[in-house]
Amino acid sequence: MDFPAIAAPDEQARADAVTRQTQLTKPAGSLGRLEELGIWLASCQASCPPRPLTRPRVVVFAGDHGVARHGVSAYPPEVTGQMVGNFLDGGAAVNVLAAVAGATVRVVDVAVDSEPFPGDVSRHRVRRSSGRIDLEDALSDDEVRAALSAGRTVADEEVDSGADLLIAADMGIGNTTASSVLVAALTGAEPVVVVGRGTGVDDAGWMRKTAAVRDALRRARPVLLDPVALLRTAGGADLAAMAGFLAQAAVRRTPVLLDGVVVGAAALVADRLAPGAKAWWQAGHRSTEPAHTLVLDHLGLVPLLDLRMRLGEGSGALAALPLVIMAGRLMAEMATFADAGVSGADDDPAPGLTG
Amino acid sequence: MDFPAIAAPDEQARADAVTRQTQLTKPAGSLGRLEELGIWLASCQASCPPRPLTRPRVVVFAGDHGVARHGVSAYPPEVTGQMVGNFLDGGAAVNVLAAVAGATVRVVDVAVDSEPFPGDVSRHRVRRSSGRIDLEDALSDDEVRAALSAGRTVADEEVDSGADLLIAADMGIGNTTASSVLVAALTGAEPVVVVGRGTGVDDAGWMRKTAAVRDALRRARPVLLDPVALLRTAGGADLAAMAGFLAQAAVRRTPVLLDGVVVGAAALVADRLAPGAKAWWQAGHRSTEPAHTLVLDHLGLVPLLDLRMRLGEGSGALAALPLVIMAGRLMAEMATFADAGVSGADDDPAPGLTG
Repeated sequence: MDFPAIAAPDEQARADAVTRQTQLTKPAGSLGRLEELGIWLASCQASCPPRPLTRPRVVVFAGDHGVARHGVSAYPPEVTGQMVGNFLDGGAAVNVLAAVAGATVRVVDVAVDSEPFPGDVSRHRVRRSSGRIDLEDALSDDEVRAALSAGRTVADEEVDSGADLLIAADMGIGNTTASSVLVAALTGAEPVVVVGRGTGVDDAGWMRKTAAVRDALRRARPVLLDPVALLRTAGGADLAAMAGFLAQAAVRRTPVLLDGVVVGAAALVADRLAPGAKAWWQAGHRSTEPAHTLVLDHLGLVPLLDLRMRLGEGSGALAALPLVIMAGRLMAEMATFADAGVSGADDDPAPGLTG
Repeated sequence: MDFPAIAAPDEQARADAVTRQTQLTKPAGSLGRLEELGIWLASCQASCPPRPLTRPRVVVFAGDHGVARHGVSAYPPEVTGQMVGNFLDGGAAVNVLAAVAGATVRVVDVAVDSEPFPGDVSRHRVRRSSGRIDLEDALSDDEVRAALSAGRTVADEEVDSGADLLIAADMGIGNTTASSVLVAALTGAEPVVVVGRGTGVDDAGWMRKTAAVRDALRRARPVLLDPVALLRTAGGADLAAMAGFLAQAAVRRTPVLLDGVVVGAAALVADRLAPGAKAWWQAGHRSTEPAHTLVLDHLGLVPLLDLRMRLGEGSGALAALPLVIMAGRLMAEMATFADAGVSGADDDPAPGLTG
């Protein structure tokens, strides 16, 4: 699974955007992070000012995890398939948040442990549930390649259809367990440091989850330096698809807004698969999952929001999406000092001293 | 200037909203602050689920400050009137942010030092520029009452016209100087602690600003316990109008999203004028102005965003507005577990232990 070299966002557009931020009718720097986001967007688009984001797209990668049968979650595994139904009916948080933010939602069943879903939803299904990673590999060699390839294909399909910003989202009971393994494997953190409450597991469940992460991490030790083998051994089909999707988004020079710990774990892998991909990403939020903070620190990303969210489904990225839209439109639509006939800073320095 | 007693947001709707958050298809608490925002909105509206916010309204209170002639700002005072023109032409940050967030903008000239603006913009003008507070009172007795009354009238007009969330915004060269005085006066902080860079004043300007705050604070010392006298002595017409607006919004049981340090200073005064008003407010963001953090701590408000913004114009509140809209719509539009046929938490406890 070889990705081409990742190009950096455009340097000339970035420089032009830095200059433009000083010409708009506001004190230089006064929009803080929104100015930086606008500059990033200009560099991703190689266009200053950036074009307005009109087709942000969320792709929910759904998959079950064998480890969920081991009591690591507050919810039974069948919730994964039930929630896919809820997404398709428009009743989940991701649907509401996307509607407010102006994004559309696609659901991709990578490894749900259910009968296939109608339409194209299960077209990229690799298998029913990934393997129980504390005892066995998540995937076969062929399956991990199929899952990575599915994610790449979906990214290509979306960019070719006009998506101008991509959000990867997750749904899968047990997926924070597999994500915690990946984060521990790639950051060197101990299981007790990475394991959080996920959907809200109780103390006994947290101990089972930590033991499962420990066992899976032991199994993963020989493959820590091989991201594809790591996904196969201790990841899952959904995580592999997300990693392929995130890496391919960077290949396609398309900006990405990251969500929480599950997408973050896939992002860690994706930046190994395609070094430099992270330049095309912003972190939507910081979740309460401890492994997510490790991801952010490791990728050097500063989250836009910190609202104690821990739902997944792309919810943290979607909550932040209006900020990215605003950042771009501010650069494109604000008047300059010259246009508006507004005096600049220190045009009339320290007037009180002479008046 | 007597305000009636402020009622608390509705307790029954709040309790109903807390329950509803446990019934929606997500782990309880997993939307973090968005869940709390939805509960607050339900209690403000006395309706669970809350009605969608369809008419959020920004009112920019513009006014000049005599102290701006003393070299406390990076910009000359005529920028206030020039920026009012920019708002009316739709070219400022507030216009762009409001358009993205789905809010509309009204500009109220309270004390701009210019010829009157067309239409109704200057209908509530109290005077041209407030007095130079380091040397003289900002306003006369009649003027401070006229300004407070203007803010109340504007809040009534907006609520009567259907606004379902209000944002007070500021424009005025020198207004962070007056705001810093109010914050120091009401929190007991020293001038050097409250004074920030405002629009980006240089070191010499910061020293002039700090000296002006110190002198104005000395003048304000006899009236620290009288919020109307404080506005008259060391505030300004725009700040008084904002305080009246914020207090009256609470009288009218209308939720408010606060902006940065200038609106925050007015909010501190408003909660003195109308104790309990702060229950109707959320803090949109934390600005980089040091006095703003004092305001937030004093009011016990936790900001939604912390993006190093310091523009004013309602920009921080507008950046946060989509989060409030999302919070309400999540409560109203998400399916419940029962509706969607999704299993709840621990319906099948620790399945791995028996399977």
